Formats: sequence, structure tokens, C-alpha cells
Amino acid sequence: MIQITLPDGSIKSVETGTTPMEVAKSISEGLARNVISAKFNDTVLETKTPLTTDGTLILYTWNDDEGKKAFWHSSAHILAQAIETLYPTSKLWVGPAIENGFYYDIDLGEETISDKDFKSIEDKMLEIARGKHEFNMRDVSKLEALSYYRDKNNYKLDLIGNLEDGTITFCDHDTFTDLCRGGHIPNTGIVKAVKILSVAGAYWKGDEKNKQLTRVYGISFPKQKDLTEYLHLLEEAKKRDHRKLGKELDLFTFSQKVGQGLPLWLPKGAALRDRLESFLKKAQKKAGYEMVITPHIGQKELYVTSGHYAKYGEDSFQPIGTPKEGEEFLLKPMNCPHHCEIYNSSQWSYKDLPKRFAEFGTVYRYEQSGELHGLTRVRGFTQDDAHIFCMPDQLDEEFKAVIDLVLYVFGSLGFENFTAQVSLRDPATPEKYIGSDENWQKAEAAILNAAKDKNLNFVVETGEAAFYGPKLDFMVKDALGRQWQLGTIQVDYNLPERFELTYKGSDNELHRPVMIHRAPFGSMERFVAILLEHTAGNFPLWLVPDQVIVLSISEKYEKYAKKVLNMLENDEIRALIDNRNETMGKKIREAELKKIPYMIIVGENEEQEGKISVRQHGGEDLGMITVQEFTDILNKEVNKTLKPF
Amino acid sequence: MIQITLPDGSIKSVETGTTPMEVAKSISEGLARNVISAKFNDTVLETKTPLTTDGTLILYTWNDDEGKKAFWHSSAHILAQAIETLYPTSKLWVGPAIENGFYYDIDLGEETISDKDFKSIEDKMLEIARGKHEFNMRDVSKLEALSYYRDKNNYKLDLIGNLEDGTITFCDHDTFTDLCRGGHIPNTGIVKAVKILSVAGAYWKGDEKNKQLTRVYGISFPKQKDLTEYLHLLEEAKKRDHRKLGKELDLFTFSQKVGQGLPLWLPKGAALRDRLESFLKKAQKKAGYEMVITPHIGQKELYVTSGHYAKYGEDSFQPIGTPKEGEEFLLKPMNCPHHCEIYNSSQWSYKDLPKRFAEFGTVYRYEQSGELHGLTRVRGFTQDDAHIFCMPDQLDEEFKAVIDLVLYVFGSLGFENFTAQVSLRDPATPEKYIGSDENWQKAEAAILNAAKDKNLNFVVETGEAAFYGPKLDFMVKDALGRQWQLGTIQVDYNLPERFELTYKGSDNELHRPVMIHRAPFGSMERFVAILLEHTAGNFPLWLVPDQVIVLSISEKYEKYAKKVLNMLENDEIRALIDNRNETMGKKIREAELKKIPYMIIVGENEEQEGKISVRQHGGEDLGMITVQEFTDILNKEVNKTLKPF
Repeated sequence: MIQITLPDGSIKSVETGTTPMEVAKSISEGLARNVISAKFNDTVLETKTPLTTDGTLILYTWNDDEGKKAFWHSSAHILAQAIETLYPTSKLWVGPAIENGFYYDIDLGEETISDKDFKSIEDKMLEIARGKHEFNMRDVSKLEALSYYRDKNNYKLDLIGNLEDGTITFCDHDTFTDLCRGGHIPNTGIVKAVKILSVAGAYWKGDEKNKQLTRVYGISFPKQKDLTEYLHLLEEAKKRDHRKLGKELDLFTFSQKVGQGLPLWLPKGAALRDRLESFLKKAQKKAGYEMVITPHIGQKELYVTSGHYAKYGEDSFQPIGTPKEGEEFLLKPMNCPHHCEIYNSSQWSYKDLPKRFAEFGTVYRYEQSGELHGLTRVRGFTQDDAHIFCMPDQLDEEFKAVIDLVLYVFGSLGFENFTAQVSLRDPATPEKYIGSDENWQKAEAAILNAAKDKNLNFVVETGEAAFYGPKLDFMVKDALGRQWQLGTIQVDYNLPERFELTYKGSDNELHRPVMIHRAPFGSMERFVAILLEHTAGNFPLWLVPDQVIVLSISEKYEKYAKKVLNMLENDEIRALIDNRNETMGKKIREAELKKIPYMIIVGENEEQEGKISVRQHGGEDLGMITVQEFTDILNKEVNKTLKPF
Repeated sequence: MIQITLPDGSIKSVETGTTPMEVAKSISEGLARNVISAKFNDTVLETKTPLTTDGTLILYTWNDDEGKKAFWHSSAHILAQAIETLYPTSKLWVGPAIENGFYYDIDLGEETISDKDFKSIEDKMLEIARGKHEFNMRDVSKLEALSYYRDKNNYKLDLIGNLEDGTITFCDHDTFTDLCRGGHIPNTGIVKAVKILSVAGAYWKGDEKNKQLTRVYGISFPKQKDLTEYLHLLEEAKKRDHRKLGKELDLFTFSQKVGQGLPLWLPKGAALRDRLESFLKKAQKKAGYEMVITPHIGQKELYVTSGHYAKYGEDSFQPIGTPKEGEEFLLKPMNCPHHCEIYNSSQWSYKDLPKRFAEFGTVYRYEQSGELHGLTRVRGFTQDDAHIFCMPDQLDEEFKAVIDLVLYVFGSLGFENFTAQVSLRDPATPEKYIGSDENWQKAEAAILNAAKDKNLNFVVETGEAAFYGPKLDFMVKDALGRQWQLGTIQVDYNLPERFELTYKGSDNELHRPVMIHRAPFGSMERFVAILLEHTAGNFPLWLVPDQVIVLSISEKYEKYAKKVLNMLENDEIRALIDNRNETMGKKIREAELKKIPYMIIVGENEEQEGKISVRQHGGEDLGMITVQEFTDILNKEVNKTLKPF
């Protein structure tokens, strides 16, 4: 008999040789039907691998990330078999599961695969799947493995050649065999829906000096409905791609001459960003923050002191020389060293603390061009940064106040669905962390206490703290259910040490303050990108570039349209006018594309009655009302989302 | 007889050998009494030098810069004689006139001069001056000159050795002789007041490898009253030094670790700057500008295209390398290339123009550390920059609109006294300028027309235009009568060419727009510095960091003081509170030092009556009034200076 510990802590006594699937069945038939993968003592194995020692067993279903991984890994085997069947001269390289689906890299020889071929590959895969073939792992010697692929597949030979001697495993299903480490679903029949998503070129081993192979991307699901939903989501995500929307809504652009990854904010985007910044500034002022302004460069020595040079130095923008005097500067990768120097420019007493210095500080970090992506991965970005310098005893209250601010920001921008992650140190390796044990205890207690007190939906990750302090990160889910990391709050014992920050305590002695780094948006660029994808460009009314567009039915009503525009502008409503000699249909269509929340239509009736006809984005008709009634509607809508902090 | 042309164009026929002083006498005795220097055919000469050819003569008095120069140059001779008399072993190097006064560099051997010795030097100089000694120039051969100084002064020997052969001149007065190129006042008696200002070390020939000499700075005047006034101004300027005030008022600081010339704006300074920026943004919005945001770096190629690399490349911050891909970036020395790229990101029609892109853009230019000075000479500064892209026919109107904006800005900030300089091309050298003749004519006419139309007090400087276009610069006089260059408006035909900017005309053809660069403040750093020195830190009420401070007479009235503070804050008044347990005298003194415009004093009477006692900065008592009455006074004062644009 062996002892199997389950995730809930319960222990099952089973006979040696019992498989994970049998354990599942012993718990419930329903569970057994859904189990598709298992991990035993931290090692992935097959659901039919006999267990022969005591240990901890985790059973995975489709709803677990590990379950999906096994599902897609197994699907890659099915894809490979289908390709080998349809393209007999092809040579396989490797085919892993990825975040969404799987791929396989293949040398197709003289053949090619285009989107026209996707259907036949999918059909072949489904045909294989329906065979309900089991995946069978077997050990082979290195010699056997090499002999299996000899003269057939130089890629696999290379792979096997580089494997350490010892157990090499093959996986068989149906007529297909692949070199494989294991972790499969019980049989191919569980795969009910497949989709080939795309083909791309991929250099063998990622080295551009090597031959280019064909990478076939696919995804698969246990239900047709899941695939349909996924494809819909994919379509929706494409429509919401912030790069596409940013262009359509004239928010930002890039210039090859200025450089990749360096966004240029166009007037509408800059005004939107300004509104976001003003919104946060106002809340921060109430929360006792003080704005500062610091340069975008600093002497190299500054970053040696802060430790950032050791972290970013070699992999980021290189030092900036000067024509004389041999000075060296760096583009700042972070604002904290500058804020520490501002703190150090005065002598503070315990009565002055906390000091909260905030800045919309633009920082620069080099990213390889292949890694750049719209506004979410750039080379220069503006953090809504702030550093709180406080006494250790003030951490608790400060942390709560920061959480309040972050929740206010998320709420005002329509992110209702978020979780938090509290990252603590690993108590087993205290040598990895800076700062006294007492201070860490205080800080961790402060974070946990604040997270509970504020009713956050949070998880605790032990060992995930930075070496300089524990932290709390916010993850939001957007309208498509995708998760994004946004705001962060971090405790720091390191920089106060490195910059020798002090305050005079009530005991008249000098003490070391503790720092909190925090950024509710994270970066303005990334936040605007996420907000674009979350809202599909339909920003909250208080934030949207143009709130209203006035459309005149014909040139005859141009004057009245302008009068209406003036009235709106006097009420501080952001309004446009479209007096072009175009059809109303075209004008409305274009206003819809520009995602302007309200359209005002003016013609003969409206002019005569001194009113306006209002149409909402998406089509709802608000009828004929006065300008005053309309601005009341707008103000009410704004006040509904944008409450005072 | 020779023909002497005077500055007013009149011609005097005089005998050969007539001196400038004699010409002055022939005009008026009064003029002759005041003439202290002269220039003939662009060469400075003595007032008693005989004129022997036809030519143009300018006679200078103390009121002319050239007159002051001769006065101070002559005073340096007197200083040198005084030093030689008081320190017989000293060796003279050189002693020029400077902007305010003169200095002499001297090797004092074993001796030293400290501020305790200034009085005796001044006394000796005045004693020499009272002798009314004439300055006599005489030609000497190089051999004579060398022999005069041999074994006595190795510095002068070096100077003579480096002079080209030909006429070398000595100047004698009283018992003193110096190597000299001439340009003296008639006699030492005109110098009625002298002041030794300071001593400093100065390396011989400015080379730190050479011996350090003693530099003695002095100034002199024709009347004692002038010196008294000057010293008062100097005292006043010291009090108003923006570096001193910036520190006292907690506006900005510098950090050796961040780097010299890179200001860190402290909370009060950053808030003040933010108010200035908001003020200009609001006016710009009304004037049809659109804000944009661009990065602080750009690819090196961008600046090669713009021509800035050729101008700033070698003498400024060096290119920024990247770890991979071999890209090179530069810190931007100007915002225009980025704005050109924003213009280029869309196709514009004549109906869209003018486009006016504005940005508070921080630029970086390397300055040698010795040239840095507070906020007026820095290595990073933020321009209140904008670029107007328009059709040549729109220049006239645009120029007028920019002048309106600049005048509005100056008016709102209390600069009443300003002049303008219109810089045009030199029609004799058309090859030095880019752009068609027709466009230049249009642009110059537009500027002149606008300057006249707006009733500017302006001078025209022909040949002072930039190669890329004519311009208009604004010079303001501060409260001490010192002149500062502020706002600039420049026409540019060059960048539209280099960036191939176009718009589609009504003829459906592509045309080249013209650009206007303009910055009313110039730079935020420099402007705040000038404003500090102009106002001595007494900023206009709408701009000042703290408008009011509430002082409680004792702890007993702390609660009422806080109530008053809340009421003020609810009325959006920037108020502080001083509830410390200190005497009222100390609290008032400190509030005065912080230049807070209004102090509110609350004690028993005030609390009982529900009123406040108000004291203005400087001492005026506004008596006991209600908070409402007080905020009315403040609002009235703000509205008096800060009118809507």
C-alpha cells in the first residue's frame, strides 16, 4: 500500500500500481470523466502511469492551466500525425503547447502549406481524434532512438544527440510515434474541435543562420462550442486591437524616423492622456501627494548608487557621453533615484512624514525591436509614479490609503473585475532579502492587513517578493476576460539604505524611513492601450476625446448647428461639428466609426423649436430635447462614473 | 581740409589735424564737456588724436556703451597704477573693461589682497584720479617694448613676443606706463567714484596648467551718486538672485548625484510651473492650438534630416547606443523634428491649415559646467514650444495671433516694459538664405505688418534673420531695469523642405507649408528664474505657491484656525496654517520671509465674531473682516491681473 496525499490535504491509502485515473475514479465517476492530466510529486505524468511510492497527487481537468497544457500538447501529436499523413516527405522538429493552443515546426521539403490547406489538416486531425487512440509512453535507449530516426529525420537526430544519456521516451498513438517527455490526455477522442490558426516561418533552433522551417499554429477544444466562443473572442480582440483603434481614433502614431517603440501622441490622444493625468492628480492632491518634476537623465553614478545600473545598464540604452569633462549620463529607467535625491535635499523630522512625491515621469528602457508591441511594449513610457517616504509604523495606514486610491482609479474607468496578488518573502531563505526581520514582519503584516481590510480578492505568493520588500500587484480582467497586470504597490528597504535617507525621530536621533513605490495606472501608454481594448474605444464619457458631434441636415442649418456647438462649448462639453455637404447617413456612419457617444442632428424642426435631436452611439434615439436637457443628461452620465475621491 | 561725417548724416569740413574733442567743441561746449571717447571709421581712438583723412566720426558720452567701455578701460589703468604703487613687487598681466566695470590680473608675488585692502586701493585710485592726468598714447618698436619690460615683467614680455611686428603702442599717464591699444577718456579726473568689488583667482591665459594670478574686479563712475545707485542695484539683485530665492521659497534644487544643470522641481516649484503651464494651455486652446506629446529621444538620423545634428551633434550630449541592432539615438535638442513627423503622419488639405501643435517639451543641450547658472543656463529645460504649419498667405494672420498671445502672457505676469526686435535678411547676400525670394518678401512683410499693427515698440535688424527665415524676439526689462530676452517667433522655410511636408491645395496639387516656431515663455526654467528676479519672489497672486497663511494666536484657537483654513480651501484658495506654539512675531516674520501675500491672524476676538484679521505681506493691515469678504478681495486681485485671453 502507498499513501497518496491530495491537494485538500486528505490522504488516500491505495495499492502500489494504482494509476491517477483510478484514484480519480475512487473519488467520483464525475471527476474521472473530466480528469485529463496529473502531476505526482511535482512531475507531470500520464493518467495511466502506475504510482509506486507515497506522494502528492494533483488531478487536472480542462479548467486547469495544466489540463489545457496536456490537451494542447496531445493535440500537437495529432497535428504532427496529420501532417505526416498529408505531407509524407515532411520532417518534424518540435511541437509544444503554448499559452493559447500549440504549434509544430516542420521541414516541408518541396511542399508548402497555405490557409487553403487548413481545412484538410483540420479534417484529418478530427478523423484521427475520433479513433480514440490512447497515448502510450515507452522508454527507449539512446541507440534505439537514434536508429528509429536514422536517414529519416536529421532534426530529431540532432535533438536526441544533444539529450543526456539515460531514459529517453517515445510516445505512440495510433500509427504515430514521437520523441516526447510525456503529459498526455487519456486518448485522442477527447479532442472534439480543432482549428489551424496560421502558418509562419521559424528558423531551426531560432537561429537565423539555420534553415527556415514552417510553423503551423493550431488550437483545440473538448467542445465545439468552446472553439466557436474562442474564435469569436479572437475576432473581437482583433477589432479591439489598440493599435488599430489608436489609428482610427487619431490617438497616437509611430514614426520610423523618430524610432520604433517611441509613441507620438496626437492631439486627441494627448488630450485624453491629459484628462487621465488631471483625474489622478486631483485624487492624489486630496490624498496628500505633492507633484515634483525631475529630468529624464541622471549621472551614471546615480544609477550605480541606486543599483539600477547593475540591473539595466548593459541591456538598456547605453551611457550618454559629453564632449568635455568626461561626464556620463543615463536615460532614466526609473524615477525613484531622482525622488530620493529630492527627499535628500531637505532634513525631515518625524512630524513631516509621510512625504509623498508624485510625478508623471517618462522613463526609457531598451527593448529589442521584435518585442515591441503598440503601446503595451515600448522603449519610452510615462509612469504615474509616486514614492511615499514614511516611518515603518505608518506603513499600515499608507498601504490602505494607496489601495483606496487604486480602487478609485479602477472604478472610475470601468474595471470592475480585478484580483490582487500579495508577494511575500520566502521565510526559508532570509539571506535573499535586505532589511531587518522586524521591518519585513511589519511590512508583510501591513500589506496583508490592508488587503483584508479593503476586502480585496487576493492570493498570497510566498517567495515572490522583491529582494527589497514585499508587494501587492493588481490584475484586471478586461471585457474579453483577458487578464492584465496594472497597478503595483511595493515596499522598499533598499533605496533608503543606498541613498542614506534619514529623518529625525521624536527621540532626536536619525532614523531610516521606508519607501513605498506605487503606480495605479502602471504606465500611461500601457494603460491607455488596455483601456482601448477593454472599452473597444468606447471610453467613459468623462474621458472620451469628443463627447458630441453636431450634424446639420443640410447647409441651410449650418448656422443653427454652430449656435448649438457654441452652447455646448460654453457648457464645457467637448463637441465637434460636421457641416459638410454629405448625406446624413454618411455623417452618422463616420461618427459611429469615430465612436462619438452622442450625435446631435439639426434640421428644420429642430431650428424652429429651438431644440436638438439626439442619437446615441449604437443607435438609440433620445428624441428632440433642449440643449439644456441634453447637457443635464451628459452631466448625469459623467457624475455616475466619475465620483469625487 | 577734411570732411567729417557725423552720425546724423551731417558733414563738417574741418582742418586736417582737428581732434574729435575739437569737433565736439565746434558743435557745442555742452557736448564737449560730456564726450569721453570717440570712434573714427570704425576704429576707437583718443579724443585728442588728430584726424587726417575724411571719415565718419562718432562721439561717445557716459551714456553710450562705448563711452562706458573707455571709462572703465581707463579706470583699469588707474587700478594698475594704484596696485603697482601699493604692491611694488607685483607684475601686471592684462586688465580689460567688462560688462559692468573692469578687472586687472596681477601676479602679486608673496603679497595677497583681501577685502580689507579694498579701501586703500580705492583711496589710492581716487588720489591718482584727482591728479587729472591725461592719457598719452605713443608708438614704440617691438625692441623698445621688450626692453622696457625686460627683467621686470615676464607676462608682458610674453604678450609682446606674441604680437605681430609693426606698431606697438604704450599708454602713459602720470608716472605709469602700460602696453595698450588705446581708447581712453580725456583725463583721470573724470573718474569721481571707484569701488573694488572682489578678488578672485585666474589662471594665466585661462589655462589651469599655468600659474594662478590675482584678478581684482572694480567699477568706477563719473558721479558718486551713480556708484551709490549701482551698489544699491547690486544689493537688490543679490536679494533677488533666483538661486537664493528658489532655495528660500522651496521651488527647486540641484543634486550633485543627478548632475549639474539638471534642476529638480520641488513641490511648490512644480505646482507653480503647473499653474504657468495651465494658464498658457488655456489661452492656447482658445487660440486654436492642439497639445501633442513626443519622446525625449529620437534616432540620430532624425536630427541629421533636420540639420540639428550638424548644429548640436559634436558639442552636445553624445549619441545613445543600444545593446543590439546598432541603433543610435539622441537626446532631443529641439522639439521641431518630432512635430514635423506628427504633421507627416497625416495627409492635410488646405482646409485643415493652419495646424498648431503645442507641447511643453523638455530638451537637452550640453553646456560646460562653468557656464551653468541656476535656472537660466541649464542642461535640460522645458520649452513652451509650438509649431504652426500654415500656407504662406496665412503668415500675416498667424503672426498677429502669436503676438496677441505673447502680449497676453507678458501682461498677465506683470512685464509691462518690453521691446521687440525684428530680424530680417540682408538683401545683399541672398545666397545665405533658404527659401524663395517671394516667400521671404511675404514673411518679412507679414512680420513688419504684424509688429506695426500690434503697436509694438520694435527695432529692425537687417541681416540678423536666421538662414531659414525672419524672426521677432521679445526683450523684457525687469524691475531692476535689466533686459532679458524672452519669447521668440520665427518663420521657417527650411524644415518643411527637409521633412518634405506637404498639403493639398485648392488646386488639388501638393504644396509646401511654412512653419512658425514660437515660445512665449522661451523656457519654463529661464522664465521662472526671470520672474523670480523681476518680482523678488512676490509672484502675482494667481501664481504664488501659497496665497494665505493662517496664524493662530495661541493653541486655544487652533480649532478655529483649522475651520478658517477649511473654508479657504473650499473656495480653492491655496492656504497654509501655522499652529505652532511660537510667538506671533516669529510666525509673522517667517511668513514674510516666505513671501506669502496674506496672513490671517485668529484669536479670541476673531473667534467670537466669526471673523478674521488680515495682514498683507509688507505690513498693511486690512482689519477684521469675514472670510467671504476676504476671498472677495483675493478674487478681485486675481481677476485684475489674470484676465481671460
